[in-house]
Amino acid sequence: MSIRPIAPEAYGPIVARQNDLLKIPGSLGLLEAIGNKIGAIQGTDHPVLGKGAVVVCCGDHGVLAEGVSNFPPSITRMQAQNFLDHGAGINQIAKASDAEVWVVDAGIDGEALPEHPRLVGKGVRKGAGNIAREPAMTRDEVEAALELGREAARRAVANGATMLAAGDMGIGNTTPAATLTCAYLGLDPEIVTGRGSGLDDASLARKRETVTRSVARARLALGDLQQADPVEVLRHLGSCEIAAIAGVYLEGAALGVPVVADGFPVTSGVLAAARIEPAMKDYLFASHQSAEPGHAWQLKDLGIEPVFRIGMRLGEGTGAVLAFPVLRAAAQVLAGMRTFSEFGISL
Amino acid sequence: MSIRPIAPEAYGPIVARQNDLLKIPGSLGLLEAIGNKIGAIQGTDHPVLGKGAVVVCCGDHGVLAEGVSNFPPSITRMQAQNFLDHGAGINQIAKASDAEVWVVDAGIDGEALPEHPRLVGKGVRKGAGNIAREPAMTRDEVEAALELGREAARRAVANGATMLAAGDMGIGNTTPAATLTCAYLGLDPEIVTGRGSGLDDASLARKRETVTRSVARARLALGDLQQADPVEVLRHLGSCEIAAIAGVYLEGAALGVPVVADGFPVTSGVLAAARIEPAMKDYLFASHQSAEPGHAWQLKDLGIEPVFRIGMRLGEGTGAVLAFPVLRAAAQVLAGMRTFSEFGISL
Repeated sequence: MSIRPIAPEAYGPIVARQNDLLKIPGSLGLLEAIGNKIGAIQGTDHPVLGKGAVVVCCGDHGVLAEGVSNFPPSITRMQAQNFLDHGAGINQIAKASDAEVWVVDAGIDGEALPEHPRLVGKGVRKGAGNIAREPAMTRDEVEAALELGREAARRAVANGATMLAAGDMGIGNTTPAATLTCAYLGLDPEIVTGRGSGLDDASLARKRETVTRSVARARLALGDLQQADPVEVLRHLGSCEIAAIAGVYLEGAALGVPVVADGFPVTSGVLAAARIEPAMKDYLFASHQSAEPGHAWQLKDLGIEPVFRIGMRLGEGTGAVLAFPVLRAAAQVLAGMRTFSEFGISL
Repeated sequence: MSIRPIAPEAYGPIVARQNDLLKIPGSLGLLEAIGNKIGAIQGTDHPVLGKGAVVVCCGDHGVLAEGVSNFPPSITRMQAQNFLDHGAGINQIAKASDAEVWVVDAGIDGEALPEHPRLVGKGVRKGAGNIAREPAMTRDEVEAALELGREAARRAVANGATMLAAGDMGIGNTTPAATLTCAYLGLDPEIVTGRGSGLDDASLARKRETVTRSVARARLALGDLQQADPVEVLRHLGSCEIAAIAGVYLEGAALGVPVVADGFPVTSGVLAAARIEPAMKDYLFASHQSAEPGHAWQLKDLGIEPVFRIGMRLGEGTGAVLAFPVLRAAAQVLAGMRTFSEFGISL
């Protein structure tokens, strides 16, 4: 399913109503732009948002062999089960934000999770390849991972979600997030690679070197990475769960619902989706800006402005879901406020 | 009713649980500090927040005679009615954030509003005095205005509110907000006075000069304004609705519920409350930081960190109520996440 681009003219009547609302134009700041975009997506100057959903995409990483994380991969599977059992951070924020939590096993390296009504997939492989030495996936695998994310998005929307986000869980996934960001944006690993879940200086140096080697390997295979097929870049330098994340954003936009980016790993999947189908960005919102240095570059490239800058770096989609009530408020402002016209006055 | 201070030791078991939650300590950034404070206020490491309420305090300003605003005072009463009729910005954000809107007529200069179950007061006077030339209120009036805010807070909490904010409506009220901020913090009018609802350079210069004259007048009457009785400072340099706002924060804290600051005018009332009873700050949260230059100084003095910096400057309590779901999420994280101890693991 492809994405319907939103023409700039669609904003005309929506901005007209926003500027007629009984307030000084601009006085709600970023909320106004958010409300206008929701209106354009829904094709109305009286938009409404209800329940949300977050699809937490899980997978492991062969690149852990290079020593890029302090944590064992077994945490990925443990947390995936925890998401289904309502015990994780994302479950609490989702409860407070009226959102459902879905889980995609995109490539967990461990025993398959027991079946669950909100679990999608059984992994396209047991952990991505070590991207410093080999592609993360085969072509069939990357396409299957994209499709897992798409399937989860379809099921979440069929179940009543009116806005979507992806979350991420994958020990080591800030390394492929950094490689993808370097590749798609043409940036240097020095400025994109961060401490992830708390690396010391020596480990950070090793991680940077790993990112540099990975990008060089992909460049040998694909040539100029900004010109290459974006799915091939994702296949070489991404991971199973990041591919699934890209699928969530592509399908959410194709279904015509607002899609909200999260932190650094999720937004690397969003970048992939934006390279695959640029019209996805017409449906895209930022939530927070994390402390990870590459995240600001991603948001800048995507042209989206974060709602929160409060030092969040948990992942799981927590920042995106925290922003759902803000989107809801922005829509309600546009739909529900009285206008200068109704009062027969003007500023 | 006086405010029960929260002892630092009350945080011990709460921080212990926060740091045992299944995440890297600190990875939820500001949400963790917010959750801990809610826990300390409620006296539990499993805090819960439900419905919120915002008390929009309305009043007019004799200082308009000095030419400090572009708008006519009649807007104050019109908007107060609009709040009761669900037509304003605050009503929409309150709907999206599960909050009730209460209105206080603290000193509207116009015909009394028709009775309404969520309207409190009939004004302690018809507009505050022109603070450049005279006190805003008599001693009886300022105490009555404080009590109107307290009464509204009591009624909102009796009606089920588990957290409170005040909003403001009063054409011209960034002028008394600036004078109070200069007085309580000992700051120069040059750095505190801003453009409010959009003054041009000439009007801004006039407003600064008005603030300077007002502060000088109060200093003649009261001496060192940082040492003076804070209620006398409020009486000389504040306004009816800013006094009512202070009452909302004092009573909310006395009732033991979290109280959330809004923009520049509301936070000037919060400053007054903090000077009257410093323990109020143990119950206080920031919401947003506005573009008005004095607001950052206020937040710094109060020691509270904003959740949003998104260019909001509408007033009415809109920023505070937008933050209610964030407080709810922070409480839910602390109450609902599983712990390392439960899993029998440690970082």
